[in-house]
Amino acid sequence: MDERRERGRNERRNDPSRVLTLSDGVFAIVITLLVLEIHVPDLAQGQSLREALREIQPSFVAFLISFVVVAIAWAGHRDLFALIRQTDRVLVWLSVLYLLPLSLMPFGAALLARYDRDAVALTLYGTLLIAVAASRLAIWWYATGRGDLLWSPVDVRARWALAAAVAIPAAANVVAIAVAGSLPLVSLTIYAAGPVLYFAAITLARGSGPPESAQRNFT
Amino acid sequence: MDERRERGRNERRNDPSRVLTLSDGVFAIVITLLVLEIHVPDLAQGQSLREALREIQPSFVAFLISFVVVAIAWAGHRDLFALIRQTDRVLVWLSVLYLLPLSLMPFGAALLARYDRDAVALTLYGTLLIAVAASRLAIWWYATGRGDLLWSPVDVRARWALAAAVAIPAAANVVAIAVAGSLPLVSLTIYAAGPVLYFAAITLARGSGPPESAQRNFT
Amino acid sequence: MDERRERGRNERRNDPSRVLTLSDGVFAIVITLLVLEIHVPDLAQGQSLREALREIQPSFVAFLISFVVVAIAWAGHRDLFALIRQTDRVLVWLSVLYLLPLSLMPFGAALLARYDRDAVALTLYGTLLIAVAASRLAIWWYATGRGDLLWSPVDVRARWALAAAVAIPAAANVVAIAVAGSLPLVSLTIYAAGPVLYFAAITLARGSGPPESAQRNFT
Amino acid sequence: MDERRERGRNERRNDPSRVLTLSDGVFAIVITLLVLEIHVPDLAQGQSLREALREIQPSFVAFLISFVVVAIAWAGHRDLFALIRQTDRVLVWLSVLYLLPLSLMPFGAALLARYDRDAVALTLYGTLLIAVAASRLAIWWYATGRGDLLWSPVDVRARWALAAAVAIPAAANVVAIAVAGSLPLVSLTIYAAGPVLYFAAITLARGSGPPESAQRNFT
Repeated sequence: MDERRERGRNERRNDPSRVLTLSDGVFAIVITLLVLEIHVPDLAQGQSLREALREIQPSFVAFLISFVVVAIAWAGHRDLFALIRQTDRVLVWLSVLYLLPLSLMPFGAALLARYDRDAVALTLYGTLLIAVAASRLAIWWYATGRGDLLWSPVDVRARWALAAAVAIPAAANVVAIAVAGSLPLVSLTIYAAGPVLYFAAITLARGSGPPESAQRNFT
Repeated sequence: MDERRERGRNERRNDPSRVLTLSDGVFAIVITLLVLEIHVPDLAQGQSLREALREIQPSFVAFLISFVVVAIAWAGHRDLFALIRQTDRVLVWLSVLYLLPLSLMPFGAALLARYDRDAVALTLYGTLLIAVAASRLAIWWYATGRGDLLWSPVDVRARWALAAAVAIPAAANVVAIAVAGSLPLVSLTIYAAGPVLYFAAITLARGSGPPESAQRNFT
Repeated sequence: MDERRERGRNERRNDPSRVLTLSDGVFAIVITLLVLEIHVPDLAQGQSLREALREIQPSFVAFLISFVVVAIAWAGHRDLFALIRQTDRVLVWLSVLYLLPLSLMPFGAALLARYDRDAVALTLYGTLLIAVAASRLAIWWYATGRGDLLWSPVDVRARWALAAAVAIPAAANVVAIAVAGSLPLVSLTIYAAGPVLYFAAITLARGSGPPESAQRNFT
Repeated sequence: MDERRERGRNERRNDPSRVLTLSDGVFAIVITLLVLEIHVPDLAQGQSLREALREIQPSFVAFLISFVVVAIAWAGHRDLFALIRQTDRVLVWLSVLYLLPLSLMPFGAALLARYDRDAVALTLYGTLLIAVAASRLAIWWYATGRGDLLWSPVDVRARWALAAAVAIPAAANVVAIAVAGSLPLVSLTIYAAGPVLYFAAITLARGSGPPESAQRNFT
């Protein structure tokens, strides 16, 4: 009886549900706030709305890239927590840490929208993308290495496969930052291509995993 | 035993719950952000607040139409997911895709509020409404055609009935876009009438469905 | 077997959970967006921050009143749905309707903050408060009158008791609107006193209800 | 049978779940809205973006401090509600009260970002931090003292240990307010050091608690 009560207490304490509510709330808000950075333009004298909208085209590009980045971050978070049975203190704080660069995405998108050829804006945006990837790697690596937090063990190949799929676009972003000053358009293109790289890597990982491995089911 | 564990793993992996949390979060935020686009007016010299509010009347119209559009999108999403037992990868990404035009609604409403007689603003708003309808059709058609994702099969008449109820106002919006340049007020009226058309179509679909069919229960 | 499946289908279809997720999302966002209408002041020449903050004091008043109004609306929604076993179409749409005046509260608060002595602003804010009360009355009256939606019947005295507790501050707001032009400060005071009236009425209702009546448990 | 129905009714009425949904919603929104107060800078003539961003550095400081404060408030709320089996009226309203200073954090952060050396801004921000701590103390003390609300009793040492961990940084903030006029930078440093103090205190509390005590599991 006491043992059962003890177990019940542990389950309530380490229940991941509120981590998910908070995270899904932040994902939903970030993905929706991005659009607040697309401002309805004022018309200069003699300007048509079509021209004014063409001028704020970088806003739409920044919005779209950021939308996809946040959506991927959410899907990855969902994949991970489908494996997790209970949290511990480190996992809770890593989850909160994951939300930090994500919550900065609307600022990054607004900066990129406004100064889309500026090396500093491009560098900051790339740094943000790398921070999202790095904190995802941290939480993935920590959680999948702790058997007591998982429903069932995650094999080492699946751990590396996802790590690679996350790290490859992040590495490309390092290149994008390096060329931000001389070739801003290349830099921007790399950011836009990041999700494509990621989906390619994840599809490869799915195909190469042994049957019933966690990597077969990456979203 | 192993089989049961396997089944448990599948259920966790394909559990729709987080898709619903994210989507309801986005619905709630979009429906609430719409109002942020109604700005408290500054008074011109000698102007009364009543006059100033009358000037921003288009903001209220745009808010109301958009509120109803988002509410319908939510109710449709709820109806659909009441039928769904588990997700697969395609359904997850279609759900995210559905959120893309929805998250742009506050921008569309703000644009319409500011330039409510401008052909470009009306065209963009109509395109947004059509994109919402198109992604709803895509997710509806995909999900109701996959028996393994459903609690029980959806008969083909119900599938077509809802598709028609969604497609008819969307088709009207195509007309609204076509006349946006010459008859902006007609265009706006069609957008406002879209929900009415939809409710009429859905009521018809409910009435004509065989007993116990999914279409009897469209909200 | 078929009967059980049928029952399962009805439960999923009429499950209130997504109505609650959407509503709680909107409540949370509205209550948080209110603060966005308190703008950090710019300092006029020679002005201290203390003086500038005193000038935006109406913002804090409008924020506080609105915060309490939304909190009461949430607590009432929670009380009601603790009684509800399943939804029907009317209840779903009444719930959405309830969110409409609530989602306008940030605009109302901003208007009141800016023009706190203007009859039009005071009238609009009062109308909003009355609309919140009216839609709460509608959803309360509908739901508690439909035995098939409830866990257990709600006695008629409890139905009237809550209706009165909601209607009394709303009636006071009608007075507030009537005097908005001549006595703006009285009008504002009535809005601020509304929650006090409500808590008094609800406490009275709790005390007078028979044991085990729903009215004993109004929050 | 009647008794069981009665118990079912009580459970639905006192179920904490909607308090959690509302609170997590507010936490998620507040933590995400903070970033809206970091505005993309306009460039003065001849100014580079790097210089302009350096000028808004206080915005980033205010964002970071506030992010950590809100994250701690969330983790504390989660720890508390892991102990709670059911709510009563007082707990519901204390929960709502807890959200009041939290919902003002984006305003406080914006004020601090703009006037980071001004005594009034520093005082207001510190007052906000103290209000968050005070309402957390109130809800903690009330809930852990009511055996009927808890899954299992919380021993008095654990109650005092958490109270101390919350009160110590709050007391430091009183000092920070006292020196805000003469030593603004010291004041700001104390606000930034608050979370460090809290984590130190909570780690100490964890270490000193008897095995199986609630204080062993503070997040």
